[in-house]
Amino acid sequence: MAADRWNALNDVPDFPPHRLGPLADRLARILKTRNDILLFQTEAVVALEAVATSIARPGLTALNIVTSPFGAWFGDWLRRGGADVVTLSAKPAWPIDIESVEAVFDAHPEVKAVILCHAESANGVLNPLAEIAAAARARGIVTIVDAVASVGGHALDVDALGIDIAVIGPQKALAGPAGVSALSVSQAAWALISAAGGRRSSTLSLLDRRDWLDSGRGALPGTAAPLEFFALEAALDRFEAEGAEAVLARHVRAAAAARDGLLALGARPWADFGRASHLVTTAALPEAVDPETFLAAAAPLDMELSAGIGPGAARLVRLNHTGLRARFDSVLGNVLAYGIALQKCGAPADLAAAAAAVAAHYGAD
Amino acid sequence: MAADRWNALNDVPDFPPHRLGPLADRLARILKTRNDILLFQTEAVVALEAVATSIARPGLTALNIVTSPFGAWFGDWLRRGGADVVTLSAKPAWPIDIESVEAVFDAHPEVKAVILCHAESANGVLNPLAEIAAAARARGIVTIVDAVASVGGHALDVDALGIDIAVIGPQKALAGPAGVSALSVSQAAWALISAAGGRRSSTLSLLDRRDWLDSGRGALPGTAAPLEFFALEAALDRFEAEGAEAVLARHVRAAAAARDGLLALGARPWADFGRASHLVTTAALPEAVDPETFLAAAAPLDMELSAGIGPGAARLVRLNHTGLRARFDSVLGNVLAYGIALQKCGAPADLAAAAAAVAAHYGAD
Amino acid sequence: MAADRWNALNDVPDFPPHRLGPLADRLARILKTRNDILLFQTEAVVALEAVATSIARPGLTALNIVTSPFGAWFGDWLRRGGADVVTLSAKPAWPIDIESVEAVFDAHPEVKAVILCHAESANGVLNPLAEIAAAARARGIVTIVDAVASVGGHALDVDALGIDIAVIGPQKALAGPAGVSALSVSQAAWALISAAGGRRSSTLSLLDRRDWLDSGRGALPGTAAPLEFFALEAALDRFEAEGAEAVLARHVRAAAAARDGLLALGARPWADFGRASHLVTTAALPEAVDPETFLAAAAPLDMELSAGIGPGAARLVRLNHTGLRARFDSVLGNVLAYGIALQKCGAPADLAAAAAAVAAHYGAD
Amino acid sequence: MAADRWNALNDVPDFPPHRLGPLADRLARILKTRNDILLFQTEAVVALEAVATSIARPGLTALNIVTSPFGAWFGDWLRRGGADVVTLSAKPAWPIDIESVEAVFDAHPEVKAVILCHAESANGVLNPLAEIAAAARARGIVTIVDAVASVGGHALDVDALGIDIAVIGPQKALAGPAGVSALSVSQAAWALISAAGGRRSSTLSLLDRRDWLDSGRGALPGTAAPLEFFALEAALDRFEAEGAEAVLARHVRAAAAARDGLLALGARPWADFGRASHLVTTAALPEAVDPETFLAAAAPLDMELSAGIGPGAARLVRLNHTGLRARFDSVLGNVLAYGIALQKCGAPADLAAAAAAVAAHYGAD
Repeated sequence: MAADRWNALNDVPDFPPHRLGPLADRLARILKTRNDILLFQTEAVVALEAVATSIARPGLTALNIVTSPFGAWFGDWLRRGGADVVTLSAKPAWPIDIESVEAVFDAHPEVKAVILCHAESANGVLNPLAEIAAAARARGIVTIVDAVASVGGHALDVDALGIDIAVIGPQKALAGPAGVSALSVSQAAWALISAAGGRRSSTLSLLDRRDWLDSGRGALPGTAAPLEFFALEAALDRFEAEGAEAVLARHVRAAAAARDGLLALGARPWADFGRASHLVTTAALPEAVDPETFLAAAAPLDMELSAGIGPGAARLVRLNHTGLRARFDSVLGNVLAYGIALQKCGAPADLAAAAAAVAAHYGAD
Repeated sequence: MAADRWNALNDVPDFPPHRLGPLADRLARILKTRNDILLFQTEAVVALEAVATSIARPGLTALNIVTSPFGAWFGDWLRRGGADVVTLSAKPAWPIDIESVEAVFDAHPEVKAVILCHAESANGVLNPLAEIAAAARARGIVTIVDAVASVGGHALDVDALGIDIAVIGPQKALAGPAGVSALSVSQAAWALISAAGGRRSSTLSLLDRRDWLDSGRGALPGTAAPLEFFALEAALDRFEAEGAEAVLARHVRAAAAARDGLLALGARPWADFGRASHLVTTAALPEAVDPETFLAAAAPLDMELSAGIGPGAARLVRLNHTGLRARFDSVLGNVLAYGIALQKCGAPADLAAAAAAVAAHYGAD
Repeated sequence: MAADRWNALNDVPDFPPHRLGPLADRLARILKTRNDILLFQTEAVVALEAVATSIARPGLTALNIVTSPFGAWFGDWLRRGGADVVTLSAKPAWPIDIESVEAVFDAHPEVKAVILCHAESANGVLNPLAEIAAAARARGIVTIVDAVASVGGHALDVDALGIDIAVIGPQKALAGPAGVSALSVSQAAWALISAAGGRRSSTLSLLDRRDWLDSGRGALPGTAAPLEFFALEAALDRFEAEGAEAVLARHVRAAAAARDGLLALGARPWADFGRASHLVTTAALPEAVDPETFLAAAAPLDMELSAGIGPGAARLVRLNHTGLRARFDSVLGNVLAYGIALQKCGAPADLAAAAAAVAAHYGAD
Repeated sequence: MAADRWNALNDVPDFPPHRLGPLADRLARILKTRNDILLFQTEAVVALEAVATSIARPGLTALNIVTSPFGAWFGDWLRRGGADVVTLSAKPAWPIDIESVEAVFDAHPEVKAVILCHAESANGVLNPLAEIAAAARARGIVTIVDAVASVGGHALDVDALGIDIAVIGPQKALAGPAGVSALSVSQAAWALISAAGGRRSSTLSLLDRRDWLDSGRGALPGTAAPLEFFALEAALDRFEAEGAEAVLARHVRAAAAARDGLLALGARPWADFGRASHLVTTAALPEAVDPETFLAAAAPLDMELSAGIGPGAARLVRLNHTGLRARFDSVLGNVLAYGIALQKCGAPADLAAAAAAVAAHYGAD
């Protein structure tokens, strides 16, 4: 056959199915959990929808904590399955507070599950996961966490916190491929899923996937996409070599530097520290600055600035310092690009002070 | 950061979103269609479930033609959405015949959609797609085809045949990556989907995906997995360089050679030619031979033999000559491995005649 | 066979030999030359040694312009082949001046070839290539240029300048693989090589390689390393999409920003602008600062700072803004890392002013 | 910058220099040697030329055993360096016999080094390495072996045999990349090299490379080509997982099957077993068959048949069963392709018997 247009990505060998199990084990170690791990050969949003459709049933009441537009989806998925959904929305683009959550728990003793996003990439806020998980645990409520945009960059000790389902993806702080995701499932979560009668014969059925695990048939329907799983192995090799503590510290430093850089610039970082994502820092534009104009002004610098997403985030700009971008030059470049774009929009920005503030986190006097 | 375990799959650049459109256009050319193309960053089974959940509604009656276990899933998905499903099952591991289909069409004038698999990888049979599509068209019935295991290896002229939805994947005859899939949607199919009221806010919603197309936001939720889409580009580069006709001819030859090789061996190819897949040839084991023992005997040869799947296929062995394996040595190796395994199980097999029969398709006297 | 440790780089398809010719043509377009192009599956230093050993002969006198330690090698290679070498060394870590070159040309009318490095990565200086080539041309002297660290980042119009041999590599401004290199050869250069009697039967023989070209056997001894040539195609795809002018402008801007940033920092950029590389900017450390201590202080920032190489460069630090690193955040990060390391060594550094100076090249007020 | 044509091979991370040492150690284990290992980022032919140029000097007498055209090169390289070369040529396309070697040793007591190729890919013959090495050792003669086309597929116990320099490449039986090579050097070989006064300041200088080793600067001049070294790691991962013994056995079986298949076909395998390469089997065409016509007849089958190279090999056809091709279907396909091409050229060929003979090596009755 004509070999005219072969390249190095043609004819990649199959990913050996027996290597899926070790991959799941490595993800379990990152999550510090002994729960079951299910692998998904999809974006993490499919894994999240699978969780919702697997637990939903008439008679189930779930609390859905909404801190970005994506949070609303989980409620839709639950309702479609017949569940009653209590929605607790934070102030737009704010994290939820534990008091509000406890108030809903008290007001709705029928709640059997609570769903929240750990860190929001849409607006950069961080929810008080440990407190919510503790409150849920005390009441026998199953805790379900979207940890895609936090795993690796925030402490996430699944078993110690008592998280029943944690959904993760390797494409953020783990700096891995974007075509796979995974979730952990506790015994309590399995019980809730079983109680749902159980969606079956679906790519969204966690019960089906558990059966595959048990039958030794591997954790995936169909063929494992070799490039994705080879790349996941490579990402975990690198993550483990750097060390979980070092990766976490690198993201903490990037977030602190971004925040202090923005403050020195004269900009307004959005969330309080301790309530902000370590992967994405957001800052609100001055009244006089139009977001589209601002982003167009920043575009030639080719940095990681993008518009906030959802209610309350229309005037937020996100600075991405995720994964391999959690480093000195990326943070510095993002902060100064923010300042340059401000200037181009006619707003003041003290680039010099901002640079010094970022540098202070990386060893400058 | 410690660079101790980097490899070449770390830090792959993003796939530029504006390159998704051209990819869809190239798939449309392969399908010979002007219909819309939606891309999925998942196994094709998710795309199939998306079709089912997008058209299902109370009041819809659909005919589900079942010629392997996977076919049953589509019915489950439809029923979950409230649709009435008329199931037409072929004799186990046989293709359906057009007369049966027309009989159901006549008996059930309320049928609005028909679903079938073009070529079955589970048991190697080929359904009479052109006839079924013509019969459906004559009655205004929407035709939905799982063409994952046929595209590239069988003629599949979507617009000429009047196929309303064709679901494909690059990992078979196109010899591409396993983590993406796609489907084409005609206006009639969109009308059916709209009539369903429309599942929304779901990774399985075709309407959502159409909105993304229209809004210029690209055809995918979330980030495009770069390795998958770079690999899809590479596979299409190669496919187009070889030429659709040449790829088709290569699979036709492989299938004919496998069949004649098996016959010469003294084995029993399962489906009649013209009713058999060009990607996978199946052959029934003699009564005295245990399938598990047989496959264990073949395993050391590391060829592409595997067990048939589903009713009627328990004693079928599949010879895979898909994609880059549709070539002389793979076909020859598979056929002779089949014969060697027969011998090891105490059954006769004329390896010499089989080799000659395969070779005759590749230019031998 | 056990498939326990496959990964995506195993079993890469062969690079089709007929694709080598088009690669050479694309490199010729970058060099703006109609001369022959020879490909080398080696580091560029091997290509340079091949040039020297191919032209060297007793009776040949060549002028070797030495502006870094690597320059001395060419003289060694020439002398080994029996040639007389006139060495013209610039002031340590300075570019050569055209007057000195012309003076040697005048004093040594027997000189038949002149060798120089266009831009030095060892110390960041740029030699006056156009003037030297013009002077050589006027005298019928063959001009040989090491353009590895300039091609793509500096104007290099081989035919217009009359460069007889230009040696290039894709791993610098072209952002390509490090295991291949190439050179262009004019008719005058072939004449000089033929006059040498001609080293033959050697991997360093340009005559052998020309024979391979003529015989249609491809431009390489042995098998083409597939990963290298697939990667070279990929790099040229990207280079051509961005455009030669844009790549050049990106490097010019990076160099100017680095220089002005260093000046604002209070540091001392080494070479005058117009005499400095666009790929690497060098700056001299203050007397009181020890280079090793300085680099150790900079190391945690993981930026692109490294020690100068060779005479006069012991106290130079190199800031790398080559290829994909010729961008805002890399330049900014390098300059500020330089400043932070200065501070850690007890020297003053105005980080704030430096950042503003860099930013001014990228649109800041 | 425009990201229009990125692909997965752009922006590959640097290969960490500290991983070169472990790679060398792994190669040493494959060679079963405690000698120094030097890595080359080139085709192995450059490494061979480096050996020749590093030992050559006036006053040195070396025996060059020539069993293919490539062997003559080594003599050219030695003579260029001023050495006296005693050439011992085998009968065209035959291996050398130990008696001839010993006769030359006896006749030329001044010989200080002997050079031979272990297994020839040009014509498929195997030289009696163990016997020659023993004879050399007994006389204090340094033994230099081109083992590129044997390592992994033949026993090659460097220290036990007393081989002083072994040159290898990963692209043959190790199924690795084609852009790197390596060699082992014993103390006796270093002494010979030092006695040569020592070529220096050359990419072909082994002394330079030893200095790099000693200075901890790594084993390479310039930047390590990341794709090559990541791929070499991947190849060694796989090799070690399969196991050296298993890889060897796989090649032995392939060679025996190819030979017996050719015999059953009625063809004439060239070298006696025990004197034939395990990676490439050659067979002589009948008088009446024109080699070019034959290869053109075989071409459509896209198998691994190619013309023999050099004196005595004009009518030999080579069947390649190297590396990942040392498996059932490749051997079978090659043998039958040979037979089909014979038939197309009007010569008889018993394809059936040939297939049975190959299959007998893979478990058939």
